[in-house]
Amino acid sequence: MKKRFNLLAVCSLAGIFMAGCNNPSSSNKQSGAMATNAAERVYVAPGEYDEYYGFFSGGFSGQLSVYGLPSGRLFKVIPVFSQDPEKAYGYSEETKPMLMTSHGFIPWDDAHHPDISQTDGELDGRWIFINGNNTPRIARIDLEDFSTAEIIEIPNSAGNHSSSFVTENTEYVVAGTRFSVPVPQRDISIKEYKGNFKGTLSFISVDQKTGDMNLSFQIMMPGFNYDLAHPGRGKSHGWFFFTTYNTEEAHSLLEVNASQNDKDFIAAVNWKKAEEYIKAGKGKKMPTKYAHNKFDNSTHTATSTMKEEVLILDASELPGLVYLLPTPKSPHGCDVDPSGEYIVGNGKLSANLTVHSFDKMLKAIESKQFDGESYGIPILKFEDVLAGVVEQPGLGPLHTEFDDQGNAYTTFFISSEVVKWKLGSWEVIDRKPTYYSVGHLMIPGGNSRKPDGKYLVAMNKITKDRYLPVGPDLNHSAQLYDISGDKMELLLDFPTIGEPHYAAAIKADKIMHKSREIYKLDENKHKYVTKSPADAKVVRNGKEVHVYMTMIRSHFTPDNIEGIKVGDKVYFHVTNLEQDFDVPHGISMLGANTTELLVTPGKTETFVWEPKEVGVWPFYCTDFCSALHQEMQGYVRVSLADSNIELSWSLDDE
Amino acid sequence: MKKRFNLLAVCSLAGIFMAGCNNPSSSNKQSGAMATNAAERVYVAPGEYDEYYGFFSGGFSGQLSVYGLPSGRLFKVIPVFSQDPEKAYGYSEETKPMLMTSHGFIPWDDAHHPDISQTDGELDGRWIFINGNNTPRIARIDLEDFSTAEIIEIPNSAGNHSSSFVTENTEYVVAGTRFSVPVPQRDISIKEYKGNFKGTLSFISVDQKTGDMNLSFQIMMPGFNYDLAHPGRGKSHGWFFFTTYNTEEAHSLLEVNASQNDKDFIAAVNWKKAEEYIKAGKGKKMPTKYAHNKFDNSTHTATSTMKEEVLILDASELPGLVYLLPTPKSPHGCDVDPSGEYIVGNGKLSANLTVHSFDKMLKAIESKQFDGESYGIPILKFEDVLAGVVEQPGLGPLHTEFDDQGNAYTTFFISSEVVKWKLGSWEVIDRKPTYYSVGHLMIPGGNSRKPDGKYLVAMNKITKDRYLPVGPDLNHSAQLYDISGDKMELLLDFPTIGEPHYAAAIKADKIMHKSREIYKLDENKHKYVTKSPADAKVVRNGKEVHVYMTMIRSHFTPDNIEGIKVGDKVYFHVTNLEQDFDVPHGISMLGANTTELLVTPGKTETFVWEPKEVGVWPFYCTDFCSALHQEMQGYVRVSLADSNIELSWSLDDE
Repeated sequence: MKKRFNLLAVCSLAGIFMAGCNNPSSSNKQSGAMATNAAERVYVAPGEYDEYYGFFSGGFSGQLSVYGLPSGRLFKVIPVFSQDPEKAYGYSEETKPMLMTSHGFIPWDDAHHPDISQTDGELDGRWIFINGNNTPRIARIDLEDFSTAEIIEIPNSAGNHSSSFVTENTEYVVAGTRFSVPVPQRDISIKEYKGNFKGTLSFISVDQKTGDMNLSFQIMMPGFNYDLAHPGRGKSHGWFFFTTYNTEEAHSLLEVNASQNDKDFIAAVNWKKAEEYIKAGKGKKMPTKYAHNKFDNSTHTATSTMKEEVLILDASELPGLVYLLPTPKSPHGCDVDPSGEYIVGNGKLSANLTVHSFDKMLKAIESKQFDGESYGIPILKFEDVLAGVVEQPGLGPLHTEFDDQGNAYTTFFISSEVVKWKLGSWEVIDRKPTYYSVGHLMIPGGNSRKPDGKYLVAMNKITKDRYLPVGPDLNHSAQLYDISGDKMELLLDFPTIGEPHYAAAIKADKIMHKSREIYKLDENKHKYVTKSPADAKVVRNGKEVHVYMTMIRSHFTPDNIEGIKVGDKVYFHVTNLEQDFDVPHGISMLGANTTELLVTPGKTETFVWEPKEVGVWPFYCTDFCSALHQEMQGYVRVSLADSNIELSWSLDDE
Repeated sequence: MKKRFNLLAVCSLAGIFMAGCNNPSSSNKQSGAMATNAAERVYVAPGEYDEYYGFFSGGFSGQLSVYGLPSGRLFKVIPVFSQDPEKAYGYSEETKPMLMTSHGFIPWDDAHHPDISQTDGELDGRWIFINGNNTPRIARIDLEDFSTAEIIEIPNSAGNHSSSFVTENTEYVVAGTRFSVPVPQRDISIKEYKGNFKGTLSFISVDQKTGDMNLSFQIMMPGFNYDLAHPGRGKSHGWFFFTTYNTEEAHSLLEVNASQNDKDFIAAVNWKKAEEYIKAGKGKKMPTKYAHNKFDNSTHTATSTMKEEVLILDASELPGLVYLLPTPKSPHGCDVDPSGEYIVGNGKLSANLTVHSFDKMLKAIESKQFDGESYGIPILKFEDVLAGVVEQPGLGPLHTEFDDQGNAYTTFFISSEVVKWKLGSWEVIDRKPTYYSVGHLMIPGGNSRKPDGKYLVAMNKITKDRYLPVGPDLNHSAQLYDISGDKMELLLDFPTIGEPHYAAAIKADKIMHKSREIYKLDENKHKYVTKSPADAKVVRNGKEVHVYMTMIRSHFTPDNIEGIKVGDKVYFHVTNLEQDFDVPHGISMLGANTTELLVTPGKTETFVWEPKEVGVWPFYCTDFCSALHQEMQGYVRVSLADSNIELSWSLDDE
């Protein structure tokens, strides 16, 4: 440690940071990068604001995290697909329906790819979508209150990985099968995989006013693995591109058996054609089961509805709907440049990076010179669609993003680096190491027609020695590069929570003005809202007891309750009467094994307690709310079921 | 945003940050602080290490977070008292027992005060303790692997707030009642509170070799609220000090009814005397019920044991055990200076800050000139124990910490500031605003004989406009001050997850060398460990099926399983065979509504699946582990209960 501070002192005297000061002890020094004034360039002084919002997926955490860029500070974790004890998400009666699926209540998912809504191919910051991988789902987060507004399950699908990317007017957000399965599910031997297991690509339409999602149609595809996807844009708007691997259709030991073919495919889906087919009645209704969950900001309550039917378009039967572009080798990322002309297939086992041309693809389709077909879907000739090749840029290419100057940036997992190359000339311009094993990268607006070429964030899978050691389990790590010059400059390492697979970022001034501060109490339509302490009460209905409770600095009403019995089911409906910004109150109950609540000003939330022991049990506010926060508490007396203690409760004047 | 960047540019040209550059747009400017080079002083360059580990309590998240200082970067969230879907903590079969209590399985708690183990009054970095507030508990986290090793429940207690502080050789970690309750619990009217409700102060001994906790004894106390606590040190070693409020013994509307008395008390507990009384057989055994949970790092499995008895010492009956020091007014923090002489009572409704003298206290005890008694406990005379008063230093004092130069620093919640004052002369030396409503503050080593007076961290309850807005629910915020000079300098704002009540920090070089990297596979004694893919198997025992599975880059063995039936209960025992640092693998199963697993190298973990639907269901690795991670997957075939499909599974050579 001493070493570092001496070095810092030297740097400080010199007035600026010099390259050598940046990373003196690392065995993987940045090769000659001049990280001039990196400290000042990432520092956001107290009271100042970051320039960008960065939304980082939580991966195996199932959530979505909001970071500031360039500071790398974590502003918030938004609960999406997993329970969050901190905010009672998935525990409170109001939020439990958000985690319902056709398989029942599921406390966890694996959230991969956030994508911000667009208008005219530009980020508009209305909503952000993110996929659940394990139980195929897509969530919509409202960027007015930064909370999950809607979750839709995707039927006939497994491992929803190639999701949740949006078209350039947010007409659709897509989903896709990573693991093909019997469709519909049935008892069939795994050995019968080939030809019998199927993939689906799902198009979920988005209501432009409310944001509501609707599963419009699914395209039935061969039993490949569908990995990633990106929409066409500009001239290729109307198309969607999906990488495939395991075109071998192996079902065991895929690391060997799905790495046999020299080329897999990028599937080019003409979704405007799909709309025509649907209009023409070519869709087939298939019975199925999937959950559709919505959170209502006036009742402050989620509902879960089970849907029973989906519209299927079979790619094998409907000409012009899907074409296959041969792409070496087990391509992972599928990235479309801002102009919509280039489709980059990041063949993770390929020596070279393959770029397809949209114009050439259209021409090849027109000429109908196919290289055969797969399950009835035409395969285009590799040479006919090839725009160019970046020769041996690195090992294990995974993902590519773009700046606003015609450059592309590709991550290489095995050689741990980001490589900058030129669209059109395919020449490598720059390369910088990452620490270590980079997966996705993100440039703000990277999935749009207007990327903002100032910063690049690398999301690294291996952390190892980059931070103070914290035992065997480490956070992942992001690295922030300045890409505004010819050469990339590494500015900052910052650890990330969960497993950030991908991120999306937007200029702060596009959304910060519309951030909500409170929910209006007089608009609260919760079934059990209590709008004044005077209306607080306790109501018994057989063994079910409903407590109508209020919280305001710094007391609960009622704060003493008697007449609760062992065997009762007690619902605490707690309304936070505050109408000031940033004054939540919490409540927890000794002995309640369900949850605490953390209630936002103007909201009502509910927890349930089924007391099993006689006694006097305290509850208290769990968020330090005022100088008299420690006084914000109360008691519930629990008597035996056959006791004759009558229900009674305190009001404020007692 | 533009404004900020112009200003930054100006600062940058000037070569250093000037005061005015730091916070130009805020209406709450730091008054004249020269935040010279703040950027450089908090910047930790890529590949470099922070100087301190900071352990921040999660408050209502129930967890403990590890930050680096001075960078403010979040390295890890350690699951302690709440379920963590990300790491399957509280979901996996191995970790579920960690969250068992006498009230059953509880998925959440409110974690307040971390404290690092000590030897000779100095931080030794073996363990860190933290309290659960709602269900009274103390957890011990092992700083070798940064994970929760043990949780002990505290019976006869409620709202365990004055916890988990350690004595100067970690002889004891303490707990205390915030909400007095009937002891033992019984059906009694809340209105009968006065005289009938009791508090307990608990002393949990710590095995110096293993760290194992044992509830040694509880001191039965009057029915006050016990708020915070700190041990004596140096000359006052052997004593423990607890603030009380609600000495009015009110039970309703405490914000009014518990603010009546001019003075409450600091309870001074002579725990060496307690040990004498126990030796003399004065302790009374009381039947009770509390859980004691341990995680075993060789079986990688937690066990929960229910204890049935506790030893009680009654403060009303045992002379010399407890004395009461009158302290104005509803004191919150109870802070002992490094010398052990001064006990600061932060009377949150008091105009002045009251400091008691340990020497004077001993003298007053000796002279036996008491100011009456409370429930048989002698009350010392205020004037007899008073060391001094800091006159009108601010509004709403909450907590005080100390540097190594004889200075004290107190937080003021209402006036939102930190005030530096001199021990002995009681004069105010400096004051700096906090943004906003500061609760605890932390100086590394602050609760020890050797504080490290370089940094101070203020933990603020209100965030409001300090960061980009993210809707109505905001993270809390910490502020880092440099206190090495005469005047405090604000260096950095960083948002914090959960509700950090308190923090503890330690120089990195005291613990970083012993951080564990992997668990050795050959030492794995899990009941269902599989140490080689060749030993993988599936065993049926009636309707219970046990899958012995391995994971290694990049496949599962077995990866195809048939013969599972609807109605089975399938245990997946998954061993990560990796023995390299930072190569976890995950596993999740479509349709399983219990959990995913994230398995550290060398560990075995278990999830349960009770399949309800016929079909072929995929599973996959949830942590990007290699270039062929996407290929790390498998399938389980589920048939009807009466189907005659035999159990079968793939091995690697198939």
